[in-house]
Amino acid sequence: MDRNENVNITLIGAGTIGLSFAAFHLAHLPSPSQLTIYDTRPDLARYIQETLPNFYSGKDISSTILKINVVSSLEDAVRNATIIQESGPENLDIKRKLWAQVEYHAPKDSLLWTSTSGIPASHQSRDMSDKTRLLVVHPYNPPHIMPLLELVPSPSTSDTVIQRTKAFWESHHRTPIHIKRETTGFVANRLAFALLREAIHLVSEGVVSVSELDKIVENSMGPRWAVAGPFKSYHAGGGAAGLEGFFGNIGQTVQNCWDDAGQVNVGEGWEKGVFDMAKDEYGTVDTEERDRITRRILQVIQEEKMGKVYGDVEPSSS
Amino acid sequence: MDRNENVNITLIGAGTIGLSFAAFHLAHLPSPSQLTIYDTRPDLARYIQETLPNFYSGKDISSTILKINVVSSLEDAVRNATIIQESGPENLDIKRKLWAQVEYHAPKDSLLWTSTSGIPASHQSRDMSDKTRLLVVHPYNPPHIMPLLELVPSPSTSDTVIQRTKAFWESHHRTPIHIKRETTGFVANRLAFALLREAIHLVSEGVVSVSELDKIVENSMGPRWAVAGPFKSYHAGGGAAGLEGFFGNIGQTVQNCWDDAGQVNVGEGWEKGVFDMAKDEYGTVDTEERDRITRRILQVIQEEKMGKVYGDVEPSSS
Repeated sequence: MDRNENVNITLIGAGTIGLSFAAFHLAHLPSPSQLTIYDTRPDLARYIQETLPNFYSGKDISSTILKINVVSSLEDAVRNATIIQESGPENLDIKRKLWAQVEYHAPKDSLLWTSTSGIPASHQSRDMSDKTRLLVVHPYNPPHIMPLLELVPSPSTSDTVIQRTKAFWESHHRTPIHIKRETTGFVANRLAFALLREAIHLVSEGVVSVSELDKIVENSMGPRWAVAGPFKSYHAGGGAAGLEGFFGNIGQTVQNCWDDAGQVNVGEGWEKGVFDMAKDEYGTVDTEERDRITRRILQVIQEEKMGKVYGDVEPSSS
Repeated sequence: MDRNENVNITLIGAGTIGLSFAAFHLAHLPSPSQLTIYDTRPDLARYIQETLPNFYSGKDISSTILKINVVSSLEDAVRNATIIQESGPENLDIKRKLWAQVEYHAPKDSLLWTSTSGIPASHQSRDMSDKTRLLVVHPYNPPHIMPLLELVPSPSTSDTVIQRTKAFWESHHRTPIHIKRETTGFVANRLAFALLREAIHLVSEGVVSVSELDKIVENSMGPRWAVAGPFKSYHAGGGAAGLEGFFGNIGQTVQNCWDDAGQVNVGEGWEKGVFDMAKDEYGTVDTEERDRITRRILQVIQEEKMGKVYGDVEPSSS
């Protein structure tokens, strides 16, 4: 799917993820493509008008909003769609019913994507007659800024669907990664939560505070891994001998850290102390500042690695 | 310790970490302070002349090198030092002997820092008569670029030593974090290795390849955590309810990921597959590109968060 090809994109669900995707698509949709938003909430048009500007740092986007086709009938929403992207509630029954209906009304070759962070496509597609069509396209929040999309097929999902989806995101300079297995939590969250588990352990043991731990990450792994992921970094760290050399040098230290790692669990009592510390040290986080800096960092990386910067949601780029 | 105060810094050990610290200090040393390098390797001066330019992307730094006092006697090296920073081999016996000697020859109030990534100050200081003086100052590699310094005192280290050390690094716009306990591997490596363990598990299970896993991190957690660490990010993700709200929403998914995490160990047989994949996919990593991009990212963050950019090792800034 080429980026200049005419595409009609239908978003199902106008929550935080859905509207963030709306902001992304509005910035990249070639004319005369159409962006349609379907949601069961009452007064949807007014809600979008009030909420969507949040994804543009409050800029005036009235002319952008006019391009959205707001629809309250699922049948109308999907009838002419090239891509149908669902970001509804994380509820298996709702999703199962939805995909059966969508399949019935949508064109036979439209792409069917779910943004779920946890319910595998194989579960969601149970009541579909053609299970080859459904694919998890899991973003990293917020998707109008972050480049990652995890593509997680069910064993039934067709390779064509995976490849067309990959081509779509690549043509928009995003980073779709094909996850080969329906693992719990996919990959990004599993990795992040593994680190979070040790972080919770260290904070509840009093080794560092919540904000000290964050500062450690912000001043070490964060910037490093923005440029070169963990394997690439340690492969470089091993010199000419690569990752093998790295483990040759400090494999014992790595194992010592693993042996000593805390295996905390949800509900074991660390919660109150850690939650309170986060609240005391941060209050309410300024996500606008965070997103502005993140955008600049991603621009630097694009510029350095691809020699060019591609925008994300500038309202003028239509 | 103010950044404009006259300081005589002595580096013990001219390996990769030692010379990277040399590059940092040379860029920040107020005149007429002195940088001294001591190492037992033969032909030390020529070695420094040949190796140090690597930390300046190969620029001509002949005038910078002239400022270094190259010394082959430990007594001469430490006699007038304000700060003595050791980055020698990771060998407990060597370090124990060294600190006893250093203590004997150095001024009574000089700061004694070890860059060790794993041998606690309490072990290293065994043969010192004044154990209050030694502090682990563990960098994130390479220290001439990365802002983090983990300050890990032994139970004997005095608070004055910790505070003077903290003041030194803060005055140079670095991020020293006081680790309250001598934990195995300190904090940064424990966190990184926890994620690495799950990364190895996912790759050896065939869920993604080495470079796909890296791309996932580079396009999600990396840039996010460069700006806001894991707690801050999830605290923001929970909206007004903060971290508590985050766990209220997806605590079960987090626990499911923890329950399903792979607990690989060194020597269990995953090594060959993962090492070979890293070699095949990366060959030799271009660390110069990595460091150049990392620098630009850190500059963006400094600019945004502090309204100003502070250089790291520009050879001209003397």
